[in-house]
Amino acid sequence: MLKITLIGSGNLGSHLFQHWKANSQVKLNQWLRRSRTERTIDGVSCIGSPSEIEPADAYVMAVPDREIESLSTQLPPTGMAVHCSGSMSLDILRNKGTKGVLYPLQSFSSERQLNFNSIPFFLETLTAREQTVLQALVDSLSTHQYWLNSAQRLQLHLAAVFANNFTNHCYEVAGRICEANKIPFDVLLPLIHETASKVAVMKPIKAQTGPAIRNDQLVLEKHQSILKNKTDKQLYQFISQAIQNSENEQL
Amino acid sequence: MLKITLIGSGNLGSHLFQHWKANSQVKLNQWLRRSRTERTIDGVSCIGSPSEIEPADAYVMAVPDREIESLSTQLPPTGMAVHCSGSMSLDILRNKGTKGVLYPLQSFSSERQLNFNSIPFFLETLTAREQTVLQALVDSLSTHQYWLNSAQRLQLHLAAVFANNFTNHCYEVAGRICEANKIPFDVLLPLIHETASKVAVMKPIKAQTGPAIRNDQLVLEKHQSILKNKTDKQLYQFISQAIQNSENEQL
Repeated sequence: MLKITLIGSGNLGSHLFQHWKANSQVKLNQWLRRSRTERTIDGVSCIGSPSEIEPADAYVMAVPDREIESLSTQLPPTGMAVHCSGSMSLDILRNKGTKGVLYPLQSFSSERQLNFNSIPFFLETLTAREQTVLQALVDSLSTHQYWLNSAQRLQLHLAAVFANNFTNHCYEVAGRICEANKIPFDVLLPLIHETASKVAVMKPIKAQTGPAIRNDQLVLEKHQSILKNKTDKQLYQFISQAIQNSENEQL
Repeated sequence: MLKITLIGSGNLGSHLFQHWKANSQVKLNQWLRRSRTERTIDGVSCIGSPSEIEPADAYVMAVPDREIESLSTQLPPTGMAVHCSGSMSLDILRNKGTKGVLYPLQSFSSERQLNFNSIPFFLETLTAREQTVLQALVDSLSTHQYWLNSAQRLQLHLAAVFANNFTNHCYEVAGRICEANKIPFDVLLPLIHETASKVAVMKPIKAQTGPAIRNDQLVLEKHQSILKNKTDKQLYQFISQAIQNSENEQL
């Protein structure tokens, strides 16, 4: 059974802890938490400093990107250093042992329960021989496994920014417009849900509707005339134009 | 029982027909379709021209915005003209009878089944006395009923453009990035679903994650350096800045 050390107690680290603490496929040996207050949690030994890390098969670093490199130099000389970042390459890891990446494509919040098995994981090692350890690690998490190199993973991370952070910003603007007009945000939820569900069965460009793709100048102008927030108005103009460009490139 | 004429056979018109053709609360008397080929469909009389419209309690116009005004002048002198547009005001209706608006906040596709009862409807009439007919009409469709004036409805329609068309454009860019890098679009679906589900339980601004809100310059620059499409790159810069502005306005 794989003996692992989990490093980090942010959103991802805490979700991994909950999943691994009583998992029959891995033995969670230690949990390194920035603010250690307990010696053990649910039978797992908690430590407060990288110097306390014992040798293990894998050290899973669920930490901010900027901390990965320096932390990797402080790991024991045997075992695999694993980072979970979408945008950092494999060779940022400076440990003496083997190196791997385990990137879960999901947005983790402390408030939300998530089922790891529905999450796709993106994996990378330097050599095929090193895949075994990473494979055992991901087998304990999800059946949705993909091998990607660092350049592809960065592209995927970029795609995720559009699909997650940027759509969420659109929800935010929509929410502000509702709020300013005393309309409950909840009335948008069926539309948001349908929009997200549609792209599971048809390409987004085929699913596009609305005044921009119809080139409905009357509605486009009406909308701009009532948008008071300058940034929102520019965003409206910019995305409307981008939708029309996409449509034209398809022709 | 309300006797109604349905006008239009686009996405909304076709969905309304399917819902009303065997509904116990309304009597669908006629269906005006641009390209009439059958005399009846499922027992409902089909007509091809506004001149064939018989007097009814309500004439529901599921037609493009630009056709509403002219079509309304051709309706019988009694009964309520009802349009279904988010962006057109009530007073665009020029019929001699009463006037109403019935705006369903949803994106209709011919390929997708929808349950009307999960859709919020936004209603408007000129006087309270006229609400009865519209109320009977919407009772046959959904329990999610809201009364909004034309100005509020236009704001809601604008919010829907952000929540639906603009998020869909973000999905499209994400899909193109995946395609160019030989990554299946499907791997984004759990993230898209989670992002859409989160805003049902927390405000979008609280749900925001990613490099822009963390002001992670390293990742922001990496992403921009790999974005080859000029419009996508400008969109990336613009929304990233907008996310940071929103965050600052919250402080």
